[in-house]
Amino acid sequence: MTKPAVVLLSGGLDSATVLAVAKTGGYEPHALSFRYGQRHSAEIEAAENVARALGAAEHKIAQIDLRLFGGSALTDDIAVPKSRSEAEMGNDIPITYVPARNTIFLSFALAWAEVLGSTDIFIGVNALDYSGYPDCRPEYIRAYENMANLATRAGVEGARVHIHAPLMELTKAQIIGLGSSLGIDYGLTVSCYEASPSGEACGCCDSCQLREKGFSQLGIPDPTRYQATRHK
Amino acid sequence: MTKPAVVLLSGGLDSATVLAVAKTGGYEPHALSFRYGQRHSAEIEAAENVARALGAAEHKIAQIDLRLFGGSALTDDIAVPKSRSEAEMGNDIPITYVPARNTIFLSFALAWAEVLGSTDIFIGVNALDYSGYPDCRPEYIRAYENMANLATRAGVEGARVHIHAPLMELTKAQIIGLGSSLGIDYGLTVSCYEASPSGEACGCCDSCQLREKGFSQLGIPDPTRYQATRHK
Repeated sequence: MTKPAVVLLSGGLDSATVLAVAKTGGYEPHALSFRYGQRHSAEIEAAENVARALGAAEHKIAQIDLRLFGGSALTDDIAVPKSRSEAEMGNDIPITYVPARNTIFLSFALAWAEVLGSTDIFIGVNALDYSGYPDCRPEYIRAYENMANLATRAGVEGARVHIHAPLMELTKAQIIGLGSSLGIDYGLTVSCYEASPSGEACGCCDSCQLREKGFSQLGIPDPTRYQATRHK
Repeated sequence: MTKPAVVLLSGGLDSATVLAVAKTGGYEPHALSFRYGQRHSAEIEAAENVARALGAAEHKIAQIDLRLFGGSALTDDIAVPKSRSEAEMGNDIPITYVPARNTIFLSFALAWAEVLGSTDIFIGVNALDYSGYPDCRPEYIRAYENMANLATRAGVEGARVHIHAPLMELTKAQIIGLGSSLGIDYGLTVSCYEASPSGEACGCCDSCQLREKGFSQLGIPDPTRYQATRHK
């Protein structure tokens, strides 16, 4: 019998890989996405396509409005940085960081897991590419897990909640290699911070650059659909 | 100069008291309420009245739909228990427990605090009256605080996030005594799980019973507006 697990699914490359990892690991994946006031909805459509293609048992989309607080280029009227060098990306917390976003996403996942009777939550955080995001670090995930065990019925009754972050220590090329070996069609995924309504990538935001480099390092074709105006 | 703080405000007696405590403690309270799919909106109106009466600097209402997951009498089609003895209330996790609700609420508060540049969040949890709720215990609050310090910009930059739970060890009578000394009009608050649209209390759910007993023990008049059908 497969165990139910909640998988946070953004529609990007990383979380698609996590969904495939959960499935291969014998879990029955219940995918969870958010409309949180992000700039475009192409990633929600990508999440729907990924959930279907990879055989999620169920896919829910929660509506929350993080524009209520603002404070990020992804939810506020602040420009997304373009064509930055890796040194610039790695320096400090980027403006694309959304305050407490992973904490909010994990909290919804925790609620759903509790209702499903599941103690397993999967998230695609990564400490290498997103070293500037406080809520992508292993010590954060461990602290969240510890809190989750005190927050819920499972914890009180002696079960252990596990926050699985299988991509934590992988490079983008390693993630793509892993997912490709599991049969993922990355052409379904959208990683760009400023994708067009139909999901075409800008090619120059931090996320696009990291993704493109991953395919290039691995030496496999990049299936990303780019906008005609890329790299201008 | 007053320090900004985020105060979780439900419209009930406890969180109104917490707002007054934060204000008296020299904080500039930014009140945060939720429409989360609860059975009635009387508590949101109560929260608006309380925020105004107690001089919150600002009051935001976040819309989230916890009915997406269900699993509680407060968000699902499950009956709210009535006229239970205190022994029954204290026994285990009640059906009015909403999975991961405080974790979700605190996560939104954390997001707002980060945008405000605040490191202080106030919540009206109480370990005596709600001993059956896992997310009302002191060890949960400490674990949340620890996680919050790893989740955010403040934590990375060396500041400390504090989750203030000033009611944690107080009885209901002590809470009412404290709030009364701070000038709160508890007639503005709604604690009932099944209040009427105009905010009249049923008088027999767990929350109503605990509240009524508090006023009675303290020997002060209970300003609660009850439904004509109470205790039937």
